[in-house]
This record gives sequence, structure tokens and C-alpha cells, in this order.
Amino acid sequence: MNTVVDTALIQSLDSAHFLHPFTDFKDLNGRGARVITRAEGVYVWDSEGHRILDCMSGLWCVNAGYGRKELADAAHQQMMTLPYYNSFFQTTNVPAVQLAAKLASLAPDVGDRSFQHVFYSSSGSESNDSNVRMVRRYWDLLGQPQRKVIISRNNAYHGSTMAGASLGGMSGMHAQGDLPIPNITHIEQPYYFENGLPGETAEEFGVRAAGWLEEKILAVGPDKVAAFIAEPVQGAGGVIIPPSTYWPEIQRIVDKYGILLISDEVICAFGRLGHWFGYEKFGYKPDLVTFAKAITSGYMPLGGVMVGNRVAKVLIEQGGEFNHGYTYSGHPVACAVGLANLEIMEREQLPQKVHGEIGAYFAQRYAELNDHPLVGVAETCGFVGGLVLVKDKARKTRFHGDDGVGMICRGHCFQNGLIMRAVGDRMIIAPPLIMTRADIDEMMRLIYLALDLTQTELKARGLL
Amino acid sequence: MNTVVDTALIQSLDSAHFLHPFTDFKDLNGRGARVITRAEGVYVWDSEGHRILDCMSGLWCVNAGYGRKELADAAHQQMMTLPYYNSFFQTTNVPAVQLAAKLASLAPDVGDRSFQHVFYSSSGSESNDSNVRMVRRYWDLLGQPQRKVIISRNNAYHGSTMAGASLGGMSGMHAQGDLPIPNITHIEQPYYFENGLPGETAEEFGVRAAGWLEEKILAVGPDKVAAFIAEPVQGAGGVIIPPSTYWPEIQRIVDKYGILLISDEVICAFGRLGHWFGYEKFGYKPDLVTFAKAITSGYMPLGGVMVGNRVAKVLIEQGGEFNHGYTYSGHPVACAVGLANLEIMEREQLPQKVHGEIGAYFAQRYAELNDHPLVGVAETCGFVGGLVLVKDKARKTRFHGDDGVGMICRGHCFQNGLIMRAVGDRMIIAPPLIMTRADIDEMMRLIYLALDLTQTELKARGLL
Ligand SMILES: Cc1ncc(COP(=O)(O)O)c(C=O)c1O
Ligand SMILES: Cc1ncc(COP(=O)(O)O)c(C=O)c1O
Repeated sequence: MNTVVDTALIQSLDSAHFLHPFTDFKDLNGRGARVITRAEGVYVWDSEGHRILDCMSGLWCVNAGYGRKELADAAHQQMMTLPYYNSFFQTTNVPAVQLAAKLASLAPDVGDRSFQHVFYSSSGSESNDSNVRMVRRYWDLLGQPQRKVIISRNNAYHGSTMAGASLGGMSGMHAQGDLPIPNITHIEQPYYFENGLPGETAEEFGVRAAGWLEEKILAVGPDKVAAFIAEPVQGAGGVIIPPSTYWPEIQRIVDKYGILLISDEVICAFGRLGHWFGYEKFGYKPDLVTFAKAITSGYMPLGGVMVGNRVAKVLIEQGGEFNHGYTYSGHPVACAVGLANLEIMEREQLPQKVHGEIGAYFAQRYAELNDHPLVGVAETCGFVGGLVLVKDKARKTRFHGDDGVGMICRGHCFQNGLIMRAVGDRMIIAPPLIMTRADIDEMMRLIYLALDLTQTELKARGLL
Repeated sequence: MNTVVDTALIQSLDSAHFLHPFTDFKDLNGRGARVITRAEGVYVWDSEGHRILDCMSGLWCVNAGYGRKELADAAHQQMMTLPYYNSFFQTTNVPAVQLAAKLASLAPDVGDRSFQHVFYSSSGSESNDSNVRMVRRYWDLLGQPQRKVIISRNNAYHGSTMAGASLGGMSGMHAQGDLPIPNITHIEQPYYFENGLPGETAEEFGVRAAGWLEEKILAVGPDKVAAFIAEPVQGAGGVIIPPSTYWPEIQRIVDKYGILLISDEVICAFGRLGHWFGYEKFGYKPDLVTFAKAITSGYMPLGGVMVGNRVAKVLIEQGGEFNHGYTYSGHPVACAVGLANLEIMEREQLPQKVHGEIGAYFAQRYAELNDHPLVGVAETCGFVGGLVLVKDKARKTRFHGDDGVGMICRGHCFQNGLIMRAVGDRMIIAPPLIMTRADIDEMMRLIYLALDLTQTELKARGLL
């Protein structure tokens, strides 16, 4: 495989033709993009030959790591057998059926919400659009069409379609394009470091933060609320891990008012939190589960919704035609790659690994970062980790947004062969689940190096 | 490759676990889905060994036909090299850049609207969401934030996200899920057979139908209109081919009021109409071009928007960060497959084939259907064809919707090894562009057979 590329040429074609997602195009064109050319295991390489430890798994998706020949073989074989056929007009295909059955077998039962059915899409965004359609259809069919409002959280990320961005709580996204669309409203996120009161324990805060949902339900009117949507752990918002008391209280509230619960597990499913699904980690019972990303370890676009029996029963028995779907709903090649990927995860017990000894080692080593002078607090949940960079550790004084402290740190990471993502003043990771102890040690060495270099630079710039 | 499957088992797993797109789940479960297991060239096979001539190219996407080893090889090779990396954080990958450059080279210049830039997604729906975001951002940046309204057409199909379904003009979709979202409005489609007045020529009708856009602009208020979106030929609506006068008049109107023009070419691009892009066929000048489907011949989910210079310039120069994008925007494997697919199309001159002799033969043979007693009118444009089934040919009397005449005809097609799609009382086709004269003859033989059997059944049922 020829991965020798002319960096300058690719960069100039890149700036001439490729409008990148979530990018300031002019700024990027001025700098020139870094060209990622190949990858293997937990590492990616750029066109200049730099090797980089990818602690973001591509973008929270390459859970089984790079270079998996089984996945390439599965794609090849399915493309030669049946590269595409639609499932619209009373036809089906084998991989889509097998993957749906497999997913149903992996999703643990939660009473009347057991997950037997799958609706497919090609992304997390599309899946959340499907959620909106299904939730509203469900209430229509039950004779409560006035239940339209979906409650979400500030700083949540649920995708980038008009509906996905509306469900999400990113103010920068809402500022562009006339968002949110109607009947979507937000509550504050359970971010203890930011919103915990002096003297309040994390557990107390968790209950109080969940209470914001009840307040909002009452403000909207309980008979108007269709559903609550949330990520088990908020990912793109900066790895916001809720206190242990949060989810049980949320469960109590959605049950009390009879509203549907959507667990957006585009990041948290498939081993990321040490279980097949994120709701298992926190022990709640969603009605709908959004998945995408790691279902294929990112090798092919695929997403969907696991539909719990409560909703599925109504849609199937009373629904008539459900007027929704995508050309690539149940794409045979994507589903074949998904199946092969889940087989790898099962065989190598990746969720169990994260749940077990390796996950414990990861948590223990990452927790050491709490001693670094620049770190306000460092936390993990399964194989995600987040820390907040602070000016004054004792007083928990934060930097100004304008200081760009996250981007400074991210620069030092990249410079030294480590990918961490910056979200404001938070540095976050979500490494491939195949990491060994040695990989974790190497990751920690690089994180310390980046933090130290960041500290030095911040001092030099007079920001510390 | 083992394609022997246990039909009953797959059907029962299918009904237990797979919620199909655009389907009445209960009805399908009662019948059992037909299991499509393999495909080669222009044929697909089901699990019972029936061979079926696929005159819908999967779902308007398998333009280069099934069994293309080059595409499977491209996917395999890219998966082993770099199966995924994101383009969010100032990184890029080679296939995404090369495909963007390739697309720019294929899209003919249309003055100040030349197409140099590509924004990627994984579907037609996502791409239209990107269009909404870009259009509104464009007008915001030009200091005209009140220009929010996008005008579309009844019976248009623009996807199935909340925004896609809103842009689309499908009443059945609007009836589910609180659609359309705000600031989207529709005009009547240019369907001469249905809406032409007695004595009015198609050319006269085309001008009148385009005039509905001007009426709508004036009704909304010219300073509030952001864009007009339309398919060159309406596909999912039933292959509604506009009269030759329609697009020039549309062009005059959008120019007069300075509004953006979005050409949704999810179906019409990549050779379908005998050109790389559909706007070439009709000679108009869009600002944004939606693509998906045949960019990969359906082998992998991939979509996007070609961004013309008028819009790109503003977004790049004045935009700052564009807060929009998808995890799989610029997916390296999808782009590698897209590149390989365009190489096939170029080498085999598929657009030229459709434009040339084979396309002429297709048009000529299909036009013969106008002599069939059940056919009101049969028309083609490139490699799409549509006909309307009528009760009384001379009087152009149509069937009642409840007669299900399209579905009856579709049943006879499937039964006899032919896939045509039914849209109400219209039967439509969009065969793979690799069809030979012999394939076209075989297709016509099967269409006649299906029409004759339909006629017999309709008589037997007392519907004729
Ligand atoms: C929780 C969550 N939901 C939805 C999405 C959107 O997924 P996609 O980018 O595939 O549309 C993401 C993407 O990061 C996500 O993290
Ligand atoms: C013109 C047009 N636009 C958009 C779409 C939506 O594409 P997708 O199903 O990939 O979301 C379609 C699908 O048929 C289409 O025909």
C-alpha cells in the first residue's frame, strides 16, 4: 500500500476543494491541514511520517482499533455478493437482518422496554431525526398528539442535521441556521465542577441537577412533553460524567410523568463505558437507544435506533405505514461490517476488558493527573476521560475562554505524537478499547509531557 | 461466497427485529419479506433463486451495476490503509481531497457559479440539511438574516430527516412528526399530464408552472426568500419530467429576485440524465448541488453538496467557523470507493453512453409503450422512465387511488423477474447505466408482459 503522498500538493487541493466539517475554512487554508495517511492498532501516521497515538479513536468510533483485516474482508465479500439493495418495498437482506438480531441479543432487557427492534440509518444525526419521528408518531398513535416537546440539555451533542443540532445544546450551532426547530427545549447539564454549589457533594448535586428535568416538565406542562433525550456521559460537550445519583433520579422523574426516555449512545455504546450499552453502566431503562460510530468501529457509516418494546409495539400494531427512512437504512455492506466488528468485540471481550482489570488500570493511572498543578479535576468512566485545565488549582480558578488554553494544550499533544481533543478548557480522551497496559503507560507519559509543556507556555505567555 | 440462506429463518428474524424504512411493519410481517441475497451486473437474485432484472438500480443508485470488483478492492485497500479519520480538527485525508478535486473537475462551470468546493455527508438527507445551514449562513453573512424561506415543490423528495422531509413535498410524510419545520413552503409541481389545461401545450404549461415560483416569491415577500430547491427531474414523486420551457423560466425568476438555486441531484447526477450533473441536461445554473446515491453506485453511504463559488466565497472569506458537519464528512473509505466509481464511469463513458446511441435506443423503445392501452403517457429523460396507468386511454381517465393499480402492476413485474417501482398510478424505472441493447430489449419484453398481466387482472377485478 502506497502511502507516500506529496504533502504540499494534497494541502493545496484540500484548501481549494474540501470544505471541512466544523471548521473556519479561511483559517485552515492559511495553515494547511495535516494529512493523515495511514493507521495501525492505536496509532495514526501523517504524510510527514509522524506517528501519533490516537487517544480519540478517530472521533470516538474506532473502538476495535485500526488495521482490522476482518472488517476489510467483510466489506469486500459483501460488496462482491450484494453491495446494495433497498429495504423499502418488502425486500430485505441477510446482513441487515442478522445485525438486527445480534443487537437485540446484546441489549439487556429492561422490563417492558426490552430491545427487540432496530431502525437503521447511516449516522448519529440521522438516528436522532428518526427518534423525533418515532416519538411523535408514538404519541400521535396513542391519541396524545399534543405531546410534542422533547427536552434535552445544554451542551449536549446530538448531531448536526437541523433536528440533531436542535436537540443538541450547543449555542454556537444554534446561532447559525435558525435553530432550534420548534418544540425542543433544554435544561442545564449535570456538570458538578461548574455548577456544584459550595459545600454541595457530587451526590447532592446529581439529585438537584436531575430535578431541573422535573422543573422543566412542569413549566412546559406534563401533558405536552414527549420525551427526554440525553447521553449517558456527555461526550462532545467535554466528557461530562454525571454523579451516581443523577440517572436514578432522572428515571424516577420520566416514570412519574410517563414520558419517553431516549439514550443517545452514539459514543457510549459498544464497550466504551465497559458494557455493550451505556444505560447498563448507569442502570436506567431507556425506550430508545441511538447508536452509530463504534457499531462498525468507524470503518463504514452506519447508525440506528434500538427501539424498546413499549414504542415498537405501538408503531407495529397500530402504526400503518411509517413514512420515514433512508436510502441506506439497512445497507448490506455496512451491516456486514457491523456484524464482523461485533464479532471481534465479543471474541476479544472488549467491553469486559474495559469493565475489568485494564479499565481499572486506565482509571487509576488517569486519576493520577489530579495531582498535576494545571488540572482542576480529572475523571474517567470506562474508556473516556476528561480533565479541566485551571489557573489556580486550590481555588479552582478557570482560564478565560479567550486564552485558548485547550487549543494550546492540544497543540503540544499533536506536536509530541498524542491526540487529545480540546473542548474549551477541557482536555478529553476516548482511546481504542484495545489499549494494553503499555499503551496506557505511553499515553500517560505523553499526557504529562503535554501538560508540562502547556504549563511552561502559559507561564511564558503570562497566563499563569 | 455462500449465498444459500434459510428463507423462513431470515424472514422470521426480519419480522422480529428489523423495522424497515417506509413500511407498514405489521403488514410486512404478515407477508414475509423477499430476501435479496446476491447480485451481478443488472440482475439481483432472491433466496429462492429467482433472478430479477433490477430496473431501479437498487434505489436509483447502482449506476455502474452490481459485482464491481474494483469498488470492493478500493474499499478493502483503503480500510487496510486508513479506515477512518476525522476532518474536524485541521486534519485531512487523501481520498476525501482527491474526490473533492475530481468532483470539481467534473462539474462544468456556470459562470460565477463554478463548482470548486465540496461539503461531504453520508446521505441525500444529510446533504439537504447542510444546504439549509449553508443557505441561511450565506444570507446571515450578507446581512440579510430575514431571508430564511426556502421554496420547494409539492411531491418533491428531498430526504427523511426533519429538514429533508420538510423540504420534500410528500403529504404523507408531513402528516407524521409535526412537519414541515418553519420557513419552508411549497409550490405545485410541473406535472403536465395532471395539471396541463385543455388545449395548453407542454411548453406553455412549463412557463406557467415556473410562474408559480414567482407568485410564491411575491406572496412570501422577495426579501424573505433564501432559496428555491428542486430536483432536475422529480424522481421519487414518480419521474415527473418538466417541459423544456420550465427550467429556463425558473432560472429567469431566481435571477430576477437574486435568490439561491439548489439543484437536488441525488438521483439525477452521475450519468442518470446523460451528463455528469442534471443541471447540464437542462442548462440552468444552480448555486448548490446535492449529491449522494450514485457517487459510490450505492456500494457505500456517501453524499454531499457541491458548493458554487457565489456561496463558497462568502462562507470562506467572511464565515469564521461553520458550525456544522458529520462524523463521517469525508470518510476515507467512502471517498475511495467514490473515486473508484467515478473512474469506472469515466473509463466506460457511462454518461456519454446514456447521452448517445444507447440512450436514444432506450428512449425509442420506451416510447413504444405509448401504444399500450393501459398507458396514458410514457416518457423518458436519460435513463429514467415513467408512465401513468390509465383506465381510459382516449379520455385519459385515471384509476382511483384505492384501486392500487400501481401495486398490482408491480406485483406482476416482481413475479416475472422485473423490478419497476410503483408511485400511485405511475410505474417508474431507472436502470443501471451499463444496460446493453439486449438488456433493454429484455426489459421491454418484461414490461409488456407485466402490463398485459395487469390489464387482465384489472379486467377480472372489474376495474377496467
Ligand atoms: C452523542 C452523539 N449523538 C449524535 C452524534 C452525531 O453523529 P454523526 O456525526 O454520525 O451524525 C454524535 C457525534 O459525535 C454524538 O456524539
Ligand atoms: C432527490 C433526492 N434527494 C434526497 C434524497 C434522500 O437521500 P437519502 O435517502 O440518502 O437520505 C433522495 C432519496 O431518494 C432523493 O431522491
